[in-house]
Amino acid sequence: MGWCDAAGEPLSAGGGKAVRPALVLLAAKAVSRVDDAVTDAAVAVELVHNFSLIHDDVMDGDEYRRHRPTVWSLFGVPTAVLVGDALLTAAQQVLMAAGHPAATRALAELSSAVQHMLHGQAMDVSFESRQDVGPDESVAMTEGKTAALMRCACVLGALYAGADPPRTAALGDFGRHLGMAFQYVDDLLGIWGDPARTGKPVWSDLRARKKSLPVVAALSSGTAAGRELEQLYHAQGALSDDQLATAAELVALAGGRDWARDRAERHLEDALSCLDAVDAEPQARRNLVAVARLVADREL
Amino acid sequence: MGWCDAAGEPLSAGGGKAVRPALVLLAAKAVSRVDDAVTDAAVAVELVHNFSLIHDDVMDGDEYRRHRPTVWSLFGVPTAVLVGDALLTAAQQVLMAAGHPAATRALAELSSAVQHMLHGQAMDVSFESRQDVGPDESVAMTEGKTAALMRCACVLGALYAGADPPRTAALGDFGRHLGMAFQYVDDLLGIWGDPARTGKPVWSDLRARKKSLPVVAALSSGTAAGRELEQLYHAQGALSDDQLATAAELVALAGGRDWARDRAERHLEDALSCLDAVDAEPQARRNLVAVARLVADREL
Repeated sequence: MGWCDAAGEPLSAGGGKAVRPALVLLAAKAVSRVDDAVTDAAVAVELVHNFSLIHDDVMDGDEYRRHRPTVWSLFGVPTAVLVGDALLTAAQQVLMAAGHPAATRALAELSSAVQHMLHGQAMDVSFESRQDVGPDESVAMTEGKTAALMRCACVLGALYAGADPPRTAALGDFGRHLGMAFQYVDDLLGIWGDPARTGKPVWSDLRARKKSLPVVAALSSGTAAGRELEQLYHAQGALSDDQLATAAELVALAGGRDWARDRAERHLEDALSCLDAVDAEPQARRNLVAVARLVADREL
Repeated sequence: MGWCDAAGEPLSAGGGKAVRPALVLLAAKAVSRVDDAVTDAAVAVELVHNFSLIHDDVMDGDEYRRHRPTVWSLFGVPTAVLVGDALLTAAQQVLMAAGHPAATRALAELSSAVQHMLHGQAMDVSFESRQDVGPDESVAMTEGKTAALMRCACVLGALYAGADPPRTAALGDFGRHLGMAFQYVDDLLGIWGDPARTGKPVWSDLRARKKSLPVVAALSSGTAAGRELEQLYHAQGALSDDQLATAAELVALAGGRDWARDRAERHLEDALSCLDAVDAEPQARRNLVAVARLVADREL
């Protein structure tokens, strides 16, 4: 979970933002007074999130996350695969252990979200060897890879609070739109983010030639800048810093940056308007809005 | 699951022996008449088994299984990790989908078995870089890696058939002993098995310098043959066929082969005597004995 360093010494920071468990707790509070049982659901969602990060880092070969070396880069691929498997299994054990009346439905939602995440990651992996990925596919990939678990977090909170189906659905939609906004912002930060804040090297997504949302939009824009970007993306060998700066500029020139910003803003607005259908408890609503702004309004 | 070739064409054979789902069905039949619901449990166990094979092959770098290339060697490590994750999740979905009264307890047993399997595999991975592994650790590793799921298969069958706790426990013990016997035999075949039957190259475990049960017994035997084997295992570079033949002989000379054969036989006997405590339906009992002999009496 990132609470210790590689030698097992406790760390005071670095465990991530815990957005998803916050969403579980706030979604529950939005609906009713919350008992302690909902923390099981929050823990389960965070375990699934960490499972997916650890396995994704193996698949993507990413050496850093949250300013720190990834599990596989410290302990090897076999250990990272095993740790991910154990976290996924533990998530389900935590959810089922207490025998909460909502646990069985929550587990079905969580497992369905996991399958969507895996499908999204499988699409992402396949994009690497394809040159014809369009924005629609890229958005569908994001629905699975990022939005499914944020949606699930809110649905689980609602289920544990005994929400009726319409409020549960509205909270789920809030989470889904928030997840989409989150990923557009994350992809923008993957190109233009401040390394000191993102914990990743500058231009890291371009360096790895990732087909992130703004890049796909640029590549399929039909513009001269898009075609130039395509040539850079398909060039042999590593890209120099000059080439990376050019690539970033081409993404912007081809409209990828504006498109991604616009989509992020629209999803954030849609998320916030979903809260109207929830008829949320006022303090929980304010906190949900604050989390939404935290993840979707990061310095762009 | 191995039902198709790499191009997606259906194959008539090659999907494995299906020992674990057979154990689920037969354990249920040993206790009572069986309804169709128990097939969910059988499917879940086989999905977990395939999950573990696919991830283990990634970790161990094994290129062949069941005479065929492994998932990662055909489709790459990322796809193999994702497929394993999806099978693990699907196992739990299959078990919970029908709302069977035994499903929740069965899921707890299955998840516990998965955690034991992961712990066993983690021990196995750690053994590779250690030179002081003793038989006790090696046996503990096998309890997790192999026996836990065979035990679980029998427990799930018993639970779905409504068995009382003593019969459930006895069937679980049967499965555990059978799993232990299975692994001793498998490790013997990993050294002396006929490649045409095992689906693996001759001496494959020695070539990979695996610390299998007979090898660990030989290495810690305190015999001259054991010390000579240790030197071979720690030699630089790949072992020649002559060296592999010598290594196999040294395992036998140091007593590893006889020890593993003896332990396999004792576990098979213990497994069969557990069936006495089950008071099993006679035809199901005969079939359980036949499965036990199939997995533990493979040509040694």
